[in-house]
Amino acid sequence: MPTAPALLTDRYELTMLAAALADGTAGRDCVFEVFARRLPHGRRYGVFAGTGRLLEALPHFRFGDEELATLRDQGLTDRRLLDWLADFRFGGDVDGYAEGELFFPGSPVLTVRAPFGEGVLLETLALSILNHDSAIAAAAARMVAAACERPCIEMGSRRTHEQAAVAAARAAHLVGFAASSNLEAGRRYGVPTTGTSAHAFTLLHDDERAAFRAQVETLGTGTTLLVDTYDVEQGIRTAIEVAGPGLGAIRLDSGDLPTLASRARELLDELGATGTRVIVTSDLDEYAIAGLLAAPVDGYGVGTSLVTGSGAPTAGMVYKLVERDGVPVAKRSEGKNSVGGRKHAVRRHGADGTATAEVVSSAPIEPRTGDRDLVIPLVRDGALCDDVAPPEALRRARAHHARVREALPAEAWALSRGESVLETLTA
Amino acid sequence: MPTAPALLTDRYELTMLAAALADGTAGRDCVFEVFARRLPHGRRYGVFAGTGRLLEALPHFRFGDEELATLRDQGLTDRRLLDWLADFRFGGDVDGYAEGELFFPGSPVLTVRAPFGEGVLLETLALSILNHDSAIAAAAARMVAAACERPCIEMGSRRTHEQAAVAAARAAHLVGFAASSNLEAGRRYGVPTTGTSAHAFTLLHDDERAAFRAQVETLGTGTTLLVDTYDVEQGIRTAIEVAGPGLGAIRLDSGDLPTLASRARELLDELGATGTRVIVTSDLDEYAIAGLLAAPVDGYGVGTSLVTGSGAPTAGMVYKLVERDGVPVAKRSEGKNSVGGRKHAVRRHGADGTATAEVVSSAPIEPRTGDRDLVIPLVRDGALCDDVAPPEALRRARAHHARVREALPAEAWALSRGESVLETLTA
Repeated sequence: MPTAPALLTDRYELTMLAAALADGTAGRDCVFEVFARRLPHGRRYGVFAGTGRLLEALPHFRFGDEELATLRDQGLTDRRLLDWLADFRFGGDVDGYAEGELFFPGSPVLTVRAPFGEGVLLETLALSILNHDSAIAAAAARMVAAACERPCIEMGSRRTHEQAAVAAARAAHLVGFAASSNLEAGRRYGVPTTGTSAHAFTLLHDDERAAFRAQVETLGTGTTLLVDTYDVEQGIRTAIEVAGPGLGAIRLDSGDLPTLASRARELLDELGATGTRVIVTSDLDEYAIAGLLAAPVDGYGVGTSLVTGSGAPTAGMVYKLVERDGVPVAKRSEGKNSVGGRKHAVRRHGADGTATAEVVSSAPIEPRTGDRDLVIPLVRDGALCDDVAPPEALRRARAHHARVREALPAEAWALSRGESVLETLTA
Repeated sequence: MPTAPALLTDRYELTMLAAALADGTAGRDCVFEVFARRLPHGRRYGVFAGTGRLLEALPHFRFGDEELATLRDQGLTDRRLLDWLADFRFGGDVDGYAEGELFFPGSPVLTVRAPFGEGVLLETLALSILNHDSAIAAAAARMVAAACERPCIEMGSRRTHEQAAVAAARAAHLVGFAASSNLEAGRRYGVPTTGTSAHAFTLLHDDERAAFRAQVETLGTGTTLLVDTYDVEQGIRTAIEVAGPGLGAIRLDSGDLPTLASRARELLDELGATGTRVIVTSDLDEYAIAGLLAAPVDGYGVGTSLVTGSGAPTAGMVYKLVERDGVPVAKRSEGKNSVGGRKHAVRRHGADGTATAEVVSSAPIEPRTGDRDLVIPLVRDGALCDDVAPPEALRRARAHHARVREALPAEAWALSRGESVLETLTA
């Protein structure tokens, strides 16, 4: 049986539901809000990602016979609970920031309005998807910024869970990565895929020349030859001898990349391969990418640091009950105070179009010139407001992200640790 | 179509295969080795995890009509490649460390012997699974050590990719976590699942008393009541009033936990609830767990830091071609030297049974008293050597891990940053 999304859930959602069904509170009208109390240390903005994946899963979030049998096997045998789950389909409303939108501490990125029983069931899956995808998107956005206009390629599948890899490729493309190595990301989301060869391919052959010849014969002269298996300079000479000066690209995957890239560029030019691009890989992160800005590099392949969120592997969003039967509610004990009530949110902009503040309030916000409403309807009475195919949802999110990041103040793009670049005002 | 494991693959594995098929090298007898060049910064040992998941996936690693159509859609249209893939099933041998085994820099944790074309295809999936699961297992093992004999519960699903969450729950249980919140981990791997309630359940009710009453009526007095939604002391008093002194446990999820736990214990004892356990959660990691050792705590719930590898979210293993047609091969350019040749490995032990070294060699190792062979056969001619159900594979790995960690020298358990606790000798 393939995994049903309903089982990708923490057990306590079901025990709460069972107890709420028993005492009649499961039907109370509730509002749950997803937000981050803070950005990861030193980060200046967040990128909201994963909505498309959550909305893909939502219609399949059901408890069929096999899921119910699983619950019984694990001791969740309450008859009232199982009967209720057998009939369950989410019938509430979901509003949220558009996928690809930026967010700041306290931004109400997703709001679920539903009877308690329906809303509480979505907590685990919603947070899993949004926390993962937003963490990757935020790291990727910093890399895209650091690379300026040079293309970034996602190639981190080998460094993260095999399914997380697909979501990571999607999140990276969302914020501007050009392509991914992951074939399933191509199939499911239409992310362009690329890939040519690894050191193993060179080592398989009797010598580098034989490997290059085999690759060029099959993949064409537009391919990328990996030239650092033995000696980089000799590798480049052999590459151009085999492929001719029309070779698409060379790849460097080790050593001191700024120096190597400069030498490689000079040598390629000397050999007449002035159009052959220089692609660098090898444990790059946003800082290493920035450090290569002055080097003659034409593209970056990024792996480990991307799929692990470059030091911030989860976005730290929580899913909190903020309103019950129209009354704002919030935890009051020390340490983790939250603001109750359903939220409105706008991004405020100055006369030049630059964003100046995130305004969040449980009361309606008096509109000012330059305000942009951030919360849009996503689900009404359980039905998706805009049921588009996964690749199209990603395409739209990518376009939205590109648009909204334009409005950020310039200090957002500093890689150094800083404060949130927009203050969150509670109007 | 559910995800086929064959598409959880980097495109370059297929382009290399296409080129190797074209020039006749795809059939060369190859040995690929999985190893980590180093442990994550400051870590003293690694834990090898994920083998069970990899062996589960292996028989399904095929290219059916839909997978082949996907490849064509992405421009992989080479006729020879597609025909070869249509007939592909892995027919090689896999050897490796037992799941749950410890590893050190250079330990040959997995070895794949197969024609190049078959071996290269497994790289991405093998590394995705092993790097993720080993990272989580290593972090979890430090937490289990820090908790001494007190139980740890995995509850990090909301902080990682929804499928990675299942694997994380499995990896945590492998190294000694008592239970997980994740229902799918219970279904797929037999991990015991637990869970009771969140703050939302208290906030749903008119007051804390009503919430506690509903929970106790449905889940019984053995349940765990979350007492910190409003005021901890009042919460504890109400909990015992509602459930009686036989209440199973209380949970504290915020504030200064050592102080709160001590006060909670005193108050519970005062109220006659001497058997009621104190469970703590709230952003715990191995250091916070160690910091609570003197506090009267009966169990730890761990989330974010566990599923993100507590600072080391990937294990850094690589999959390298080390032998071709019986000849050792290795990359020679600067920066990333590797040792060629298929490896033997033993763990050497002193007279008192304490491990003293990891011995790794491409030549047979002359056995000494106390040596334990580390490499076992996993797959022969494509068939699993020991085809056990996933829960049984996990149970065995858990038992193996518990056995082998006993032999580590005491300094392995220090949480401070240090060197690998065993030196890797190349005999």
